[in-house]
Amino acid sequence: MSHPQTMTSRLAAEFLGTGVLVFGGCGAAIFSAKVISSNTVNMGIGFLGVALAFGLTVLVMVYAVGHISGAHFNPAVTLGAALAGRIEWKAVPAYWITQIIGASVAGLALFAIATGKHGFDPVASGFASNGYADRSPDGYSMLSALLAEIILTAIFLYVILGSTDGRAPKGFAGISIGLSLTLIHLVAIPITNTSVNPARSLGVAWFAGPAALGQVWLFIVAPLVGAAIAGLTYPLFFPNPAVSMAVEMDRGPGPTSTDD
Amino acid sequence: MSHPQTMTSRLAAEFLGTGVLVFGGCGAAIFSAKVISSNTVNMGIGFLGVALAFGLTVLVMVYAVGHISGAHFNPAVTLGAALAGRIEWKAVPAYWITQIIGASVAGLALFAIATGKHGFDPVASGFASNGYADRSPDGYSMLSALLAEIILTAIFLYVILGSTDGRAPKGFAGISIGLSLTLIHLVAIPITNTSVNPARSLGVAWFAGPAALGQVWLFIVAPLVGAAIAGLTYPLFFPNPAVSMAVEMDRGPGPTSTDD
Amino acid sequence: MSHPQTMTSRLAAEFLGTGVLVFGGCGAAIFSAKVISSNTVNMGIGFLGVALAFGLTVLVMVYAVGHISGAHFNPAVTLGAALAGRIEWKAVPAYWITQIIGASVAGLALFAIATGKHGFDPVASGFASNGYADRSPDGYSMLSALLAEIILTAIFLYVILGSTDGRAPKGFAGISIGLSLTLIHLVAIPITNTSVNPARSLGVAWFAGPAALGQVWLFIVAPLVGAAIAGLTYPLFFPNPAVSMAVEMDRGPGPTSTDD
Amino acid sequence: MSHPQTMTSRLAAEFLGTGVLVFGGCGAAIFSAKVISSNTVNMGIGFLGVALAFGLTVLVMVYAVGHISGAHFNPAVTLGAALAGRIEWKAVPAYWITQIIGASVAGLALFAIATGKHGFDPVASGFASNGYADRSPDGYSMLSALLAEIILTAIFLYVILGSTDGRAPKGFAGISIGLSLTLIHLVAIPITNTSVNPARSLGVAWFAGPAALGQVWLFIVAPLVGAAIAGLTYPLFFPNPAVSMAVEMDRGPGPTSTDD
Repeated sequence: MSHPQTMTSRLAAEFLGTGVLVFGGCGAAIFSAKVISSNTVNMGIGFLGVALAFGLTVLVMVYAVGHISGAHFNPAVTLGAALAGRIEWKAVPAYWITQIIGASVAGLALFAIATGKHGFDPVASGFASNGYADRSPDGYSMLSALLAEIILTAIFLYVILGSTDGRAPKGFAGISIGLSLTLIHLVAIPITNTSVNPARSLGVAWFAGPAALGQVWLFIVAPLVGAAIAGLTYPLFFPNPAVSMAVEMDRGPGPTSTDD
Repeated sequence: MSHPQTMTSRLAAEFLGTGVLVFGGCGAAIFSAKVISSNTVNMGIGFLGVALAFGLTVLVMVYAVGHISGAHFNPAVTLGAALAGRIEWKAVPAYWITQIIGASVAGLALFAIATGKHGFDPVASGFASNGYADRSPDGYSMLSALLAEIILTAIFLYVILGSTDGRAPKGFAGISIGLSLTLIHLVAIPITNTSVNPARSLGVAWFAGPAALGQVWLFIVAPLVGAAIAGLTYPLFFPNPAVSMAVEMDRGPGPTSTDD
Repeated sequence: MSHPQTMTSRLAAEFLGTGVLVFGGCGAAIFSAKVISSNTVNMGIGFLGVALAFGLTVLVMVYAVGHISGAHFNPAVTLGAALAGRIEWKAVPAYWITQIIGASVAGLALFAIATGKHGFDPVASGFASNGYADRSPDGYSMLSALLAEIILTAIFLYVILGSTDGRAPKGFAGISIGLSLTLIHLVAIPITNTSVNPARSLGVAWFAGPAALGQVWLFIVAPLVGAAIAGLTYPLFFPNPAVSMAVEMDRGPGPTSTDD
Repeated sequence: MSHPQTMTSRLAAEFLGTGVLVFGGCGAAIFSAKVISSNTVNMGIGFLGVALAFGLTVLVMVYAVGHISGAHFNPAVTLGAALAGRIEWKAVPAYWITQIIGASVAGLALFAIATGKHGFDPVASGFASNGYADRSPDGYSMLSALLAEIILTAIFLYVILGSTDGRAPKGFAGISIGLSLTLIHLVAIPITNTSVNPARSLGVAWFAGPAALGQVWLFIVAPLVGAAIAGLTYPLFFPNPAVSMAVEMDRGPGPTSTDD
């Protein structure tokens, strides 16, 4: 690599962005989803607030560091971007490792804060972990969970690849990508607590007990499958011979990956 | 047609966008609107969350594929756009058929996931279908339903035609059009469950039983009437002789319909 | 007038925009704020949803017709804009009359739809009218109502004048102005049901009975006072000698008032 | 100073913006968070609505006056901006004093309005003050409060510094910065009522009794520490030698600080 600092900045951006995704999204779920007052009034933010929080983590971090790293914050997004020719394959392992570390550090910070409340139990509360069947928030089967996670991750990638296409309006990708993650959570929190992101699932599963860890495989496999479907089919459905790969790679206006 | 692939891409975009509209909007209603905890606390997203979900489906898909197809995702929008001179008439039948197929495939996917929950009953639950009188969520008459659907679809089309007018700020149409659909749902979910889109109504009505199918005519007729009113009157109220039709047709910056 | 059609278009835009503001904002309050299920669960949108609806009416209509009329939709905004030199004084009476007519026609449409529900009583329900003291939603005095309406309308005008200032980023004014109206409603619905707009208050007061009409004076006086404060002080606090009045008048990129 | 009026305008903008932040954010919490109807139905906006209100205050004021002052509205933001080289150090004391005065005047206006409701008690209600341990809304320890406030202020500053970096898309910083404050509140209202802003904490603490004032030190120290961490590390993680400090200082397109 001729510009090693650039790859350092990219990984710093992925670490920070994935950390904010887990700290903000899972943090909203753990601390704020349900805060009961007067026995029956929930002052908390409910599934709607959690859905908003997850989407805003991505929206704000795309504008904060999207011009540095492309703002993936998600191993499934990195896979889909690589399959669609938007990121060089050799950057994928470093992105993946950094995303998982960032998510796990954020999970640890959430754990440290949550233990400051008397009676906190990460296993009983679920600690915002994903699940299906007996661990599905509203009782959906493993097959429903698989189907929902695959379809929703594919939708996520179509929005990402389309909004960062050279033909789309400049600058708006952060809004559409972030709010698509809100949309995805509005649909799927009752089904699986919503993953579409293996790093997000792993980052909190470490703290949620063996039952949570035992189901985490689905939230690694299904998002990767969904992202692969979209990454492979997007260029077929919407070919754009006039725009070079290099231009399409930008989510923001800045340089992305000229470090080799 | 001299560029057949372009029409293929446009129809792929309409299929995908209408599918996301139904999967995201109706999916949020079916899975997430009401998830009762502790007997009286609704952790679900309520009508507010469903309204947000519908709007976000359009917002994100305008940025994802608006530059490909114009992002109608709705037979009423296609009619209004044609009447206002924003799309060629001969593309209308293919758009309509594609939108209805996309909506119905999404309805089928929702049905497959929903059946993975024990005790799911599509007819008793309504399956996010539209209705009036005895099937109105809060007991509004057929006349109220007609009036609300006509007025709200006309508003929707005024926002679409105005925001994509050559005189409006570039790039923001996805935000205003998507959020206008949220606004429309904030008003009308208690009246009809909100259609303003015949494809959305048909896409789930197949699964919601004969009573739902028996009322679906209103959600085809009223949106088309409302869209026609706006499509015919917009050019009269807001003439813009300086801008050619070709320029006004764009929702995004890309080419739209030069395929014949 | 040498271009009479231009003034016609401007008034059509103000009629349409003010109508959407009342139909969307007050409609959300009347139909959707409270829809009780299972005795204690509110599926409705609450004050949060109503606040969002009011803001979205302005956000979407700024992008739809802001380039035609400047998107006031509110006699207080028109006064503040005139005092700040953003609109010619002789257009003010026509704007005011059109805004009140648009709001009242929308009120009539809401009344027609609402009567299609069995047991609807516009006086007992309040019909989204504004009030203070015994008619304040949460029991605030007349003085509190005056103070809140004056301060909040002044804030609204500072946001409008600042966001449409030639020095602000282009195109974003619709987002900031619309969402400032959401913010204003998040603060003041419990105090007065939130006016900051005499046309909005009049548009529904006709239908809400004599007690509502007897209090409507405050929702004409206070917004005009607040708007005047901001309209007079904005140019003093934030002078911009480099930008001419003509350029500052635009909310969108188009021509605004060259019709005489 | 060679252009004294410019510094006057900057301070007017900070006064106005910080005032709107407290009046809008804390006002939403005081008046609208909980408005109980029918014994068990909360028509109020809950923690979700309060989180939205705080974010919108910043979003709308960035577009209204960001081109005048840089739109800090927060002593911690001013510190972080100075450490990152985005504002001249000698402006910091005037910014700090103005922010605290603006917040306190807004607190006084809220107090005046709130006393117009029978039975209002600022101490018992908390008056939107921040707290930990026995004054934490959901019972979190002082250590949890410290950790949460430091981490969240650091995230806030990374979003601010990144979104206003010369490499980020132009014009979108108001959206990402404002919505990052919403995100922060979605996470931390149950922990501390969310500060991340010493001026906001002081502005209402004066009215909330001695217990509130006795804890306010944490909401001065922790935000300043968090902001300092981000202000010092941002330039290390994301160096940008091609862009001069003067260009990076702009949040909007206008001039910021050429007054000496």
